[in-house]
Amino acid sequence: MILDGKMVAQEERKKLCTLITSYQEMGLRAPKLAIVLVGHNPASETYVSNKMKACHEVGIEVDKLAFEEDITEQELLNVIHQLNTDSSVDGFIVQLPLPEHIRESMVLTEIDYRKDVDGLTPMSMGRSIQGLRAIPSATPAGIRTLLEYYHIQTAGKHVVVIGRSNIVGKPMAIMLMQRPYLSLPSMSASTLGDATVTVCHSKTDHLEAICRTADIIIVAAGCPGLVKANMVQPGATVIDVGINRIEDPSTPRGYRLVGDVDFEHVAPIAGAISPVPGGVGPMTIVSLLKNVVVVYGGKLLGAKVGEE
Amino acid sequence: MILDGKMVAQEERKKLCTLITSYQEMGLRAPKLAIVLVGHNPASETYVSNKMKACHEVGIEVDKLAFEEDITEQELLNVIHQLNTDSSVDGFIVQLPLPEHIRESMVLTEIDYRKDVDGLTPMSMGRSIQGLRAIPSATPAGIRTLLEYYHIQTAGKHVVVIGRSNIVGKPMAIMLMQRPYLSLPSMSASTLGDATVTVCHSKTDHLEAICRTADIIIVAAGCPGLVKANMVQPGATVIDVGINRIEDPSTPRGYRLVGDVDFEHVAPIAGAISPVPGGVGPMTIVSLLKNVVVVYGGKLLGAKVGEE
Repeated sequence: MILDGKMVAQEERKKLCTLITSYQEMGLRAPKLAIVLVGHNPASETYVSNKMKACHEVGIEVDKLAFEEDITEQELLNVIHQLNTDSSVDGFIVQLPLPEHIRESMVLTEIDYRKDVDGLTPMSMGRSIQGLRAIPSATPAGIRTLLEYYHIQTAGKHVVVIGRSNIVGKPMAIMLMQRPYLSLPSMSASTLGDATVTVCHSKTDHLEAICRTADIIIVAAGCPGLVKANMVQPGATVIDVGINRIEDPSTPRGYRLVGDVDFEHVAPIAGAISPVPGGVGPMTIVSLLKNVVVVYGGKLLGAKVGEE
Repeated sequence: MILDGKMVAQEERKKLCTLITSYQEMGLRAPKLAIVLVGHNPASETYVSNKMKACHEVGIEVDKLAFEEDITEQELLNVIHQLNTDSSVDGFIVQLPLPEHIRESMVLTEIDYRKDVDGLTPMSMGRSIQGLRAIPSATPAGIRTLLEYYHIQTAGKHVVVIGRSNIVGKPMAIMLMQRPYLSLPSMSASTLGDATVTVCHSKTDHLEAICRTADIIIVAAGCPGLVKANMVQPGATVIDVGINRIEDPSTPRGYRLVGDVDFEHVAPIAGAISPVPGGVGPMTIVSLLKNVVVVYGGKLLGAKVGEE
């Protein structure tokens, strides 16, 4: 079975669109996301315009705050503080990476976790790890939605996560090992969690043997072809978070995108597998949209992220 | 080999004592811990007086702030805010549990992570998970010190953590899977980390089989005798974090303390094992003392926890 992230993301967007339309029919303002962009990194500009497009499609308003490369750390922190207190903005994100002279961790630490719709601040992660209400990291939340859509259970299952990054590996591991919980108002209860989770990485011995014991493998290592057929037990679920450019002169752009899984040989063995592209990628943007709408919806219901 | 936490804690306390004496010979004030205690829970009162005694032994000054059971949440939050800004207090802890009418998570969230010497606030955990400077949780930090003392390596090793609590299981797993890092000024570099970590819990299938693949087992499940001889591979390290009261009419108190490991049968197989009592327990208090001194020492050196 192919886990079709493109299709699932499309359905999720439709649901969000219906929800926002119904809010507007009630005379309410639209949810609003602010995006902070520093400098002119072409990849960042593309990501931001994709996010803006996705927002507009479902009816989320977007404020793009663009700054030149030479903004100081203090000036940027002032922008963050203003967004924290601006009640017309439901959530905001700072597009990474930032220029060298600005410390990413200082900026992320200052974002109010109640507006942290990327779910990447230390406070959001700390609250998640403690099982407190927090906005989930976008990529792990997207993977959760994908697994839920296809009714793939995690309770008692052995999940092997390959990669220990701050944006995928570690928050994904935490999310899957927790007790299942009720998520924010207006979103359905999550059925995932209660998994036995192993986190592997570049220093892991016996990666192949460990993977062969997995019911679910989630790989975010940035290493093309890392997960091979001999590492996957028949029927296992394989989620590929890798996005790698491989030179390919036969394509118009001279390259193609591949994941961290040897898809051709693993797909026939796996019980379920997400392709690259069209798997996890589209789910990540939809998680961001969902996070904005959940914060907005929570406000309507008087239930805020910071309250237990 | 028995991992003698009592002896290692004693040595660590001696080192702290020497360090604090040298500060005082330089004419500096003593490090200062504040302890907030609400109500008259007998166990809490015992813990607090043990902590105070341990502080005094090494030369840490202690302010005990005791409040009656009926203090309101807001009044307690005001106390926290005052301690956050009181520059004469290096770090402080709130003894848990709190009375039912006070939300623990609200109180912990308000503690400034730079003074959070229990390392239990969401911000401390979130920063730890992201590899940023933070005060480590006391029990995992104590286990780290114990492993380091006996030169037990973790890089590339398979560590199985049993239990997913906020104070042991989850922070321990995070600490061991991270890249090794330089800890705060005046403390030595940690050699631990880079482990392949599996977190097991009450919902785990095949716990026995998973444990048999472990180089190191760390159990904090609150379940006497959970780890049996057939779950431990010869030569493995076993760390027992459990503290359980077992009825025993032959003792003066009518009970004795046991851990989560069937010590009698596991000890002959294990390469190294920590006993209960006298293993992890004494290390936890010494971690608290160490955290206070590290925050104090960091201030002297102009390096604060919040700066990268």
